[in-house]
Amino acid sequence: MNNSFGRIFKITTWGESHGRAIGVVIDGCPAGLEISEDDIQVELNKRAPGNISFTSPRKESDRAEIFSGLFEGRTTGAPISIIISNRDANRSHYDDLKNFYRPGHANYTYLQKYGIFDPYGGGRSSGRETACRVAAGAVAKKILRQLGIQIRAILTEIGGCYDPQKMQEILEEVFQAGDSVGGIISCEIFNLPPGLGDPIYGKIESLLSDAMLSIPASKGFEIGEGFKVSQMKGSQHNDSFKLNAGSVTTETNHAGGTLGGITVGTPLLFRVAFKPTSSIKIPQKTLTLSHEERDLKQPAEARHDPCIAIRAVPVVEAMAALVIVDAYLCNRVSRIKEENNLSFS
Amino acid sequence: MNNSFGRIFKITTWGESHGRAIGVVIDGCPAGLEISEDDIQVELNKRAPGNISFTSPRKESDRAEIFSGLFEGRTTGAPISIIISNRDANRSHYDDLKNFYRPGHANYTYLQKYGIFDPYGGGRSSGRETACRVAAGAVAKKILRQLGIQIRAILTEIGGCYDPQKMQEILEEVFQAGDSVGGIISCEIFNLPPGLGDPIYGKIESLLSDAMLSIPASKGFEIGEGFKVSQMKGSQHNDSFKLNAGSVTTETNHAGGTLGGITVGTPLLFRVAFKPTSSIKIPQKTLTLSHEERDLKQPAEARHDPCIAIRAVPVVEAMAALVIVDAYLCNRVSRIKEENNLSFS
Amino acid sequence: MNNSFGRIFKITTWGESHGRAIGVVIDGCPAGLEISEDDIQVELNKRAPGNISFTSPRKESDRAEIFSGLFEGRTTGAPISIIISNRDANRSHYDDLKNFYRPGHANYTYLQKYGIFDPYGGGRSSGRETACRVAAGAVAKKILRQLGIQIRAILTEIGGCYDPQKMQEILEEVFQAGDSVGGIISCEIFNLPPGLGDPIYGKIESLLSDAMLSIPASKGFEIGEGFKVSQMKGSQHNDSFKLNAGSVTTETNHAGGTLGGITVGTPLLFRVAFKPTSSIKIPQKTLTLSHEERDLKQPAEARHDPCIAIRAVPVVEAMAALVIVDAYLCNRVSRIKEENNLSFS
Amino acid sequence: MNNSFGRIFKITTWGESHGRAIGVVIDGCPAGLEISEDDIQVELNKRAPGNISFTSPRKESDRAEIFSGLFEGRTTGAPISIIISNRDANRSHYDDLKNFYRPGHANYTYLQKYGIFDPYGGGRSSGRETACRVAAGAVAKKILRQLGIQIRAILTEIGGCYDPQKMQEILEEVFQAGDSVGGIISCEIFNLPPGLGDPIYGKIESLLSDAMLSIPASKGFEIGEGFKVSQMKGSQHNDSFKLNAGSVTTETNHAGGTLGGITVGTPLLFRVAFKPTSSIKIPQKTLTLSHEERDLKQPAEARHDPCIAIRAVPVVEAMAALVIVDAYLCNRVSRIKEENNLSFS
Repeated sequence: MNNSFGRIFKITTWGESHGRAIGVVIDGCPAGLEISEDDIQVELNKRAPGNISFTSPRKESDRAEIFSGLFEGRTTGAPISIIISNRDANRSHYDDLKNFYRPGHANYTYLQKYGIFDPYGGGRSSGRETACRVAAGAVAKKILRQLGIQIRAILTEIGGCYDPQKMQEILEEVFQAGDSVGGIISCEIFNLPPGLGDPIYGKIESLLSDAMLSIPASKGFEIGEGFKVSQMKGSQHNDSFKLNAGSVTTETNHAGGTLGGITVGTPLLFRVAFKPTSSIKIPQKTLTLSHEERDLKQPAEARHDPCIAIRAVPVVEAMAALVIVDAYLCNRVSRIKEENNLSFS
Repeated sequence: MNNSFGRIFKITTWGESHGRAIGVVIDGCPAGLEISEDDIQVELNKRAPGNISFTSPRKESDRAEIFSGLFEGRTTGAPISIIISNRDANRSHYDDLKNFYRPGHANYTYLQKYGIFDPYGGGRSSGRETACRVAAGAVAKKILRQLGIQIRAILTEIGGCYDPQKMQEILEEVFQAGDSVGGIISCEIFNLPPGLGDPIYGKIESLLSDAMLSIPASKGFEIGEGFKVSQMKGSQHNDSFKLNAGSVTTETNHAGGTLGGITVGTPLLFRVAFKPTSSIKIPQKTLTLSHEERDLKQPAEARHDPCIAIRAVPVVEAMAALVIVDAYLCNRVSRIKEENNLSFS
Repeated sequence: MNNSFGRIFKITTWGESHGRAIGVVIDGCPAGLEISEDDIQVELNKRAPGNISFTSPRKESDRAEIFSGLFEGRTTGAPISIIISNRDANRSHYDDLKNFYRPGHANYTYLQKYGIFDPYGGGRSSGRETACRVAAGAVAKKILRQLGIQIRAILTEIGGCYDPQKMQEILEEVFQAGDSVGGIISCEIFNLPPGLGDPIYGKIESLLSDAMLSIPASKGFEIGEGFKVSQMKGSQHNDSFKLNAGSVTTETNHAGGTLGGITVGTPLLFRVAFKPTSSIKIPQKTLTLSHEERDLKQPAEARHDPCIAIRAVPVVEAMAALVIVDAYLCNRVSRIKEENNLSFS
Repeated sequence: MNNSFGRIFKITTWGESHGRAIGVVIDGCPAGLEISEDDIQVELNKRAPGNISFTSPRKESDRAEIFSGLFEGRTTGAPISIIISNRDANRSHYDDLKNFYRPGHANYTYLQKYGIFDPYGGGRSSGRETACRVAAGAVAKKILRQLGIQIRAILTEIGGCYDPQKMQEILEEVFQAGDSVGGIISCEIFNLPPGLGDPIYGKIESLLSDAMLSIPASKGFEIGEGFKVSQMKGSQHNDSFKLNAGSVTTETNHAGGTLGGITVGTPLLFRVAFKPTSSIKIPQKTLTLSHEERDLKQPAEARHDPCIAIRAVPVVEAMAALVIVDAYLCNRVSRIKEENNLSFS
């Protein structure tokens, strides 16, 4: 199993949904960065159920605690260990579920791979792991803020609709029906310097798509015009270079901010598709672990998120922040310039 | 720069479009595999221009030579070095292009990143690097064949059309117009065992999307229903488990063969979007390296691929093969079973 | 900073000497292994001060707690997070030390590298980090026990003496004098299968020396005859192959169990040198952070380990266990044999 | 198998002793470095037999050719592929040897690991692979020269003797006897900046020992006083800090240039032990592959290096250069200073 993400700015997450705690270790954060538990809390609160209607009623009130890596409020270059306790861990209603191969869930595949599975809250396969990504992303965002780089993800489509009011209606409908619906998140990154990303296997879009497809329930990634490129001609799609206040930029941004895998300096624009929440209240035909056909019914008191994409918004931002900080640090060793005390003849 | 791909079965590619040669080193191929230059040639021929209408007229007639890693026709566990000479490397018509920031090309971003760029044939940023991927993919495919796993990629959409005859018409049109068009490749992988992929950051879909977005000109990746999930309800999207001849499988395959990042055992289905070829014959407004506005015109004798997606088909297959072999090898250390001489009490 | 060790069985440690806690995340432990906090405690107790005379009087009574990765007493393939609280963290007597560049200590170099340093107990540079290695090593040892592999490290030399009684005398002397002394640890690994280790850059001796030189205060590593090889002829040093009860083995074991970087199957024998403890009670000439020449005097109540090599014994065993388990797992993908369901040709 | 070394400045070597060629791919070399085939040839010539008495008579006259990664004489950030053809590859006298488990050689262990072995010239296990390290080291040295860092390795001990004249006598003796002898190489690195090396698992001494123990025939590594530390007291071993022309340095350098795994700025001093050449002319008792006891006799015309340590000198320098350049690049992302366009409030 691989629980690490990143090359220089690297995170390792651990913990199960209903265990004692979950956590993340950030390794490779440069020394000298001012960071506090409040910086992390602000981001964690974005995924808190209280802030979002129609998301899981579990009162997480997650509190991130920093256990290492700081001295007098600044990073020291040592690993930053952040721990979030699991409080509301009611295991009882999983006892009914644990004998089923749950449609859309990972217990069948985990059992095939590992021969063992922690059924309580989905164990390691729970979306709860993403709280660790958001916590680590908060540190990455702090660095980006110093660099003037901004990331903004928003939910732009639910049930095939783009109109916010319609989206709200659809949510109410599926919630009442005990069903769920998919959604699409759009993300924009502004004020990026040109030069981030490696040209062959660490292309900025490869890194981002890897990051986004690692978020539970995601099913697609596209950058710039994405899948619409099939309907475009080269003469339409190519972005012409032009000068803007003395700087090189492009007339249009069909590419979504990258050429040859490297940032152009224009906004990075990408979209991520999320499937409908797998846990629904409607009974579903499936098998028990002993291969009997049965109807699976969620317990009435179980949580119900009608649209998991809503909760994925801060996770998309966090993963994007991790990718950009890592690419920024990697880029610092691509070329050694004179001003960095090294002049190659 | 990062020119390696894979974790256990790892490739490193090198070489520029118009240099002496390009090559790939495969590290981590298990010992004992029968492999020959013919095995590789068969795959390389799939990307040869002679086999495809409307692709670049450069007569590559690439010949892959194996320089190391074999003894008496079998792999020894040592790195396999494959080298492909560059024969048809006419540099002259790049002299006109090298002073322009070429729309849709990588010379602007490379110059921003590295301060230096090899303009001949695009240097390292050329699609020619993908020949190395196809060569390495041929070795991976040989392993997959032993395991009974099959990969099949096809071009399913050009210019927004799915009808092969219409697709041909569109190609002729854009070719005559000196323009280009985007396309979408669909890929299916059959007979996969369940259990491949890591559940958090090495999800099989993350690995595949990383691989696909690393192919030049790719702009999107989706698995299963992909971006259509936004229009689906959970009750529609969830694949019910059922028995088939005593084995667990699913009624439908909306997920595209993966749950929680791990293969289910059902076919893996994904799609990749490719932008229109950036090099077109139609003049384009752009800047010179010295920031003058000029029209860029491709030399008449320059190659012209009206749809780069056509040539990407064997590359998609090769990258998929590399991902699956790597995931297969990684999976061998996920759980240690009794039959592998290790019984955990 | 790099706080991870290992390739497939990988650990990441975090925490400072006088922070809230220290910890380790083990990633890549195969699923199905029975493990308990007691298994870890047994190893941690070996480094407890109560068990060793003349080691630091700090009453650590470390308690390792497992926070993740287990279900019903067995590993699930998920990361294993082990946390050890810091109890006896008296910061006061470091206030006198924190303005000095301490001879033999790392505060000068950390400040040069990071521009910031946690002086309390040495922060991250403290030997306390090795408790995490011992905890992770306990999990590795559990696997080795299933495989019948045994590791035994002993202190074989102090102050140039090999006689245990003399060693005890030397310790008393340096302790009374407020001084310290260096030592050498010998380690033997029995019952190893042949074939572990990679032949070029992951040689078993490279991996071990990397591991051993990462232990604080270590200054040398040798395998087999080590530095004595300079005094030997090839005709003496070469180990002849012979049969023993039908199996191939060697007459002698000058090589120390490895040929071409790969285990032979004979015992692995290596030695590690540890410098004298840097913290001594004798006043030392040095500089303050503001570059004034001053005598540094340890506070009377500060801990005093006359020979750090004593406490390094369980750490040497732990690191050896981590290296061997990792090499064992890596070796499982070197060759795919028929009995593993894959027959090449 | 792992044929890569390094983290940011990373090399991958390939090729067998008697195959068509051997080669190395350097990935991660910063763009803008002036480099030529002559730069590499100068280093390769240091290991040429003509320059050393009593080394293998094989007339290698190795010529390194650069196949990629340069444009107009400068590195572009793309991978640098260097290839060295194998010319003098007489396979015939290995036919007598290939049925024996050769004492001190790797064919037994390779066969145990991989089930297959290329016996000609030792295949991949040949010392010939080190030519690739020397070639890559030449590029690293070019960078170090720009930084003013110098590496100097010399053979300081043969057969237990330090006197050059006596060393020459011993060499003649063992050569006449068809025997071989071990040796020790000392290496000094001058003018290093403080701050290189990671404090926990990437200590500069760990990286160096890993590198040195990866050189064929090496059996030990020590830094500073090395194994002599066992005979020292802390009051002797600790290096006092002092001012020298306004800069902090140490009175003595017992540590060998590193504290807490990070360079101090004083010279880095280490030693590496090499066993006697395994191939000797004296007949040796051993087993055939079919387990018969037989005397192994080298063919009269086979090469005979009486002391492999002699040829290891440029390899030690090359590996040290690779470690230092990599640590230098890694260090550039440890702390982000204001002058690097990033001010952390």
